Amino acid sequence: MKNIEHIGIAVKDFSAANGLFYKLLGQEPYKTEVVESEQVSTSFFRVGNSKIELLEALSADSPIAKYLDKHGEGIHHIAFEVDDILAEMERLKNEGFLLLSDIPKPGADNKLVCFVHPKSANGVLIELCQEIK
Amino acid sequence: MKNIEHIGIAVKDFSAANGLFYKLLGQEPYKTEVVESEQVSTSFFRVGNSKIELLEALSADSPIAKYLDKHGEGIHHIAFEVDDILAEMERLKNEGFLLLSDIPKPGADNKLVCFVHPKSANGVLIELCQEIK
Repeated sequence: MKNIEHIGIAVKDFSAANGLFYKLLGQEPYKTEVVESEQVSTSFFRVGNSKIELLEALSADSPIAKYLDKHGEGIHHIAFEVDDILAEMERLKNEGFLLLSDIPKPGADNKLVCFVHPKSANGVLIELCQEIK
Repeated sequence: MKNIEHIGIAVKDFSAANGLFYKLLGQEPYKTEVVESEQVSTSFFRVGNSKIELLEALSADSPIAKYLDKHGEGIHHIAFEVDDILAEMERLKNEGFLLLSDIPKPGADNKLVCFVHPKSANGVLIELCQEIK
């Protein structure tokens, strides 16, 4: 866990939220990207060595739609950057953490990702991410 | 907003949560500190240029006790490091953000802090913090 790569925030109105974070952070998102497999639109803002990722659901099946139904808008996950996602997944499994997939999946922003279930991490949805080189 | 200074996580059992984050991050907290004014115990773990702050309520009056009652354990706030908290508070007020105090307050880890109401920031409780030199 070498860095907080980003913080993911679930939003209902992507355009309004991008405008609000523009005002908050004083900058436009450097990238917007659709992740079809998760049915989300994403936008990214740089803050120091980290990023803020806004997430909007593209369909009712999206994990973000389910999150918004249950919790409303707010902080959805913390993503930690790792050098070797497979080794870190193995280490966390051995420590008793519950992973949401057995293998890493392609995520937004050129990353391989894996999530740790919030049930095993004090209610916090944790993402591990490794940059694809 | 020059950096994500820390992410605050509300926990019910401070000792168990410190043990869990020790396993997650592979390190002990570098500091624990009680903030009497907020009725919280805090512990801090370094991750790159940022920190994870665990927060436990010390009384039913603590904002963390109220948060846990309403939401359960999880991510409580994002703190952004700023160079000039008064200027940043003024800028955000002028942009329409609702601040939780008119003047900065002393926070944990040698900081002056001010919070932005989640109602005005997509459900995200945002802390501004400036290091006291």
